[in-house]
Amino acid sequence: MKPSIPKGTRDFGPADMLKRNYIFDTIRSIFRTYGFDQIETPAMENLSMLEGKYGEEGDKLLFRILNSGPVLEKIREGKNDLKQGDVTEKGLRYDLTVPFARYVVMHQNEIAFPFRRYQIQPVWRADRPQKGRYREFFQCDADIVGSDSLFNEADLVSIIRDVFLRLRLGVSIHINNRKILAGISEVIGERERIVDITVALDKMDKIGIEKVNEELAVKGVSENAIIRLQPIIRMHGSNADKLEQLKEVLKNSTPGMKGVEEMETLFGILDQIHPEANEHSYPANIELDITLARGLNYYTGAIIEVKVADQRSQFTSSICGGGRYDDLTGIFGLPGVSGVGISFGADRISDILDEINGFPDFTTESTRVLFANFGNEEAVFALKMVNRLRDEGISAELFPDAAKMKKQFGYADGRKIPYMVMIGSEEMKTGQFTLKNMESGEQSHVAWDELLHVLK
Amino acid sequence: MKPSIPKGTRDFGPADMLKRNYIFDTIRSIFRTYGFDQIETPAMENLSMLEGKYGEEGDKLLFRILNSGPVLEKIREGKNDLKQGDVTEKGLRYDLTVPFARYVVMHQNEIAFPFRRYQIQPVWRADRPQKGRYREFFQCDADIVGSDSLFNEADLVSIIRDVFLRLRLGVSIHINNRKILAGISEVIGERERIVDITVALDKMDKIGIEKVNEELAVKGVSENAIIRLQPIIRMHGSNADKLEQLKEVLKNSTPGMKGVEEMETLFGILDQIHPEANEHSYPANIELDITLARGLNYYTGAIIEVKVADQRSQFTSSICGGGRYDDLTGIFGLPGVSGVGISFGADRISDILDEINGFPDFTTESTRVLFANFGNEEAVFALKMVNRLRDEGISAELFPDAAKMKKQFGYADGRKIPYMVMIGSEEMKTGQFTLKNMESGEQSHVAWDELLHVLK
Repeated sequence: MKPSIPKGTRDFGPADMLKRNYIFDTIRSIFRTYGFDQIETPAMENLSMLEGKYGEEGDKLLFRILNSGPVLEKIREGKNDLKQGDVTEKGLRYDLTVPFARYVVMHQNEIAFPFRRYQIQPVWRADRPQKGRYREFFQCDADIVGSDSLFNEADLVSIIRDVFLRLRLGVSIHINNRKILAGISEVIGERERIVDITVALDKMDKIGIEKVNEELAVKGVSENAIIRLQPIIRMHGSNADKLEQLKEVLKNSTPGMKGVEEMETLFGILDQIHPEANEHSYPANIELDITLARGLNYYTGAIIEVKVADQRSQFTSSICGGGRYDDLTGIFGLPGVSGVGISFGADRISDILDEINGFPDFTTESTRVLFANFGNEEAVFALKMVNRLRDEGISAELFPDAAKMKKQFGYADGRKIPYMVMIGSEEMKTGQFTLKNMESGEQSHVAWDELLHVLK
Repeated sequence: MKPSIPKGTRDFGPADMLKRNYIFDTIRSIFRTYGFDQIETPAMENLSMLEGKYGEEGDKLLFRILNSGPVLEKIREGKNDLKQGDVTEKGLRYDLTVPFARYVVMHQNEIAFPFRRYQIQPVWRADRPQKGRYREFFQCDADIVGSDSLFNEADLVSIIRDVFLRLRLGVSIHINNRKILAGISEVIGERERIVDITVALDKMDKIGIEKVNEELAVKGVSENAIIRLQPIIRMHGSNADKLEQLKEVLKNSTPGMKGVEEMETLFGILDQIHPEANEHSYPANIELDITLARGLNYYTGAIIEVKVADQRSQFTSSICGGGRYDDLTGIFGLPGVSGVGISFGADRISDILDEINGFPDFTTESTRVLFANFGNEEAVFALKMVNRLRDEGISAELFPDAAKMKKQFGYADGRKIPYMVMIGSEEMKTGQFTLKNMESGEQSHVAWDELLHVLK
C-alpha cells in the first residue's frame, strides 16, 4: 500500500513546525498584550450552524461528515428515502468567525462583554487545491463583540501593525466601509444590486477594472450606473482627500454619509496613535481603499484587508482580513450584538517569509547534546547524566544503540546537534568526559560542572 | 435557530484553554528536553490509511467525510451504483500513531533515524459519548522509530515520571510485554487464541477477573487453559520476584522467555536511573503487571499503561499508554523499522486535575490593566498609553465605550483585571494618572514611570 495524504492537505515536519510555531507564537503574544482571551471550538459543527453563512459557493465547499451507523450500507442498497439529515448532519468548520458567533450565543451568560477573544485553529474548505491554497489551513483570529466603538477597529489595525513589525514584513492595510459601498450603490441608482456590486469589486485585484465592469453589466447593472461608478472607484489622493471627495459624492445617501463619518472617526484615531502610518511607511501604510469589498455577506461596517507591500516579495494576495458584522449572533438568536474581527492567514504568511528568507535561525530549538553509546554499562551511566541535564532544562539524548561511532556522529550531524559527549569505561572512572563541539570538531575533557556550564 | 454543538464535542472557553495549555505546555517542554521534534499531520487521512488498523470495532468508530461533488444529490436520487469510494474516501484521524507511521514512510528520506517525534493534536472517534469520553479529544504522543534498543522504553518511562512529577499527580506505571502474553498463551495451550486472551485480559480493570474468565470461556478458551492461567495472572510480589516466577512458568516458550529477558533489561536500566521507583514511591511507582494487555493489535513488545495512584483522586482509568510496535510502518511499505511510543490523554488528565484542585493559579495570564474611557479625546490619549504598555509586553486594554463608570468597573471585575487607570482632562494636563488597585480598592496618583513600575 502506497502511503498518501488527501490532496490539499500537508504534513508538517519538524522544520515546518518551527516556522509555524514562530508565526503562531508571534501573533498569539500580540493578541495577549491586547487583552484577548483564547478559545477553541470543535472541528465539527452541526451543519445547520454552517449552511447559509458563506453564500452559495461556501455551502458547496463545506466538508460534510457521514453520520454514524449503517448509512453506507443503506446508500449501497440504494435506499432512496435518505434525506440530507440522515446522511450527514455535521461538517468541518469553514472559518473561525461563525463558530465564534455560535459560541458567544451559547455562552453569553459566562461572558463579560465586550468580549475580546482570539482563536488559532485549522479550517477546512473543499476548494480546488493549487499553489498556496490548501484544503486544511490555519487561521489566527481576534474578534471583539459587544461594542460598536471604533476604538475596537483601531485596536485591530494596531495589532496588524504590531504583528508585521515583529515579523519584519512590510504590508499595506486597506480599509473601507460597507456603508460607503452601500452609499455608492445607492447614488449610482443600483441600491438593490449591492451584493452583486460587492462581489464584482472584490475581484478588482485579480481580474482588473475592465473585467469588473463586464461582470457588473452581466449581473444587470445599468450602463449608466457603471459609467457613474468609474470616477468613484478610480478616486485617488490621501486618505483625507478621499474622504472629502466621498462626502461630496455620497451627500444624498444616508448610509453612505454614515460610512464616511465612521471612517473619519477611525482615521482620526489612527492618525493620532500611528501618525507615521498615514502615508507610506514601514512596516504598514494605512489606506482608505474604495474598491475594497470583501466577499462575505455578514460585514456591515468597516472592512479591512492586508496585502504584502515589501519589495522583497512577489506576493500580492491578501494575508489578513476582517471587518465589522452588526448582526452575526442574531442568526443564532442573540440580536443587537455588534462585533468586529480580523483573521491572519498563517499559511500565506509562512509562504511569504519563506520566499524572502524572513524566518529567524531556529537551530537553538532542537537537541543540544547527544551522548554516545558504547554498550549497556556505559550507556546506563550516560543516561543518568542525560537525565540530570534534562532536569536542568537542557535538551539531551543518549544514542539508543551501541552502533558504530560513524553512525552516531552521522545522526548528530543529521539532526544538527551542536555537542556530543563520549563516556567510555575510562571516563566513568575519572569523571572527566570527552566533549566534542560538532561544528568546530574541537574536543576537550570536562567534568560535570564544566559540561553544564558549556551547555547552558 | 437554537445554537448547538455535536454531542461528544466541547467548546473551550478562556478558563478551559488556560488549563489545557498548562497541560500541553508541561508535556511539550518535557518532550523537548528529551530531544523529541514536533510534527503535525492533517485532520483528514485517506480511509485506506486508517481502515483495518484499529480492529473491527475501530473501523466502525471512524468519522468518514462525504466526497465533494454531487454525492448528496445522487444519494437522494437513490443511485444504487455508489460504492464506498464514490461516497467517502477520507476520514478523520483516529489516533496519532497510524498517521505517524504513514508520515515516517512518506518522509523516510528526510528523516535522521532513530527519529524521535512528538505530536499534540485532536483525534476523533464516533464512540458513544459519556462522562469523560469525548468524540473529539486530545492526544500528546512521543514515539521513537528506527531503534529496537530498550533504552527507548526507559526514556519513555522517564518522560512519564517527569510529566506527572511536574503536574504533581501520583501515578502507577504498569509495564508488561506482548511476548510474555504470547508465552502465557502458549504454555496454557492456547497459542492461537492470543488475540482473544489479550482482549479479555485488557478488561480486567473494568470487569474483574471472574468476568474475564467467563469471556475467555465464551471465546472458546478451554477450561483447562483457564485453570492454568489463574496462578499466572494472580502472580504477585516485587518486580524481581515476578520475573523469577515468569522464568519458571515460561521456560518452555521461546517468545515468552524473550519477553522476560526484555523486561529484565528494561527493569535493570530503570532500577539504576530511578532506584526510588522500583516499589511504591511518589510520583510514580513502576510495576510489572502481567494482566496488562492493551487492546491494540499492533503492539509486539513492551506495553505501558499509566493509572492515577493519588489518594486525592477517585479516578482509576488509564491516563497514558503505549508500547512497542515492530512492524507498523510495514503495512505502508517500509518493513523492519521498529518503533515505541506513548500517548498522554490530555482530557482525562485535565478532568483529574480539576477533581483534585491540581491546577496552578492562572490569574497572572490575562489582562493586567484596563484604562477607563471618559470620551473620545481622553480615550485617544489613553489609547496611546495603552499601546506603549503593550510595547513593553504588558497586557493592557482601553474600555472601548464611554460607558458609565459602574459598567467599566464591572467589566474589570468580571475579567479579574487587577488594575484600572483613570485619565480625565485634568490628568491629561498634569501627566499624573489615577491608578486603582481593583483588589484592595486603593487609589493613587502616579506618573508614567511609576505606572510602568507597578504594572511590570
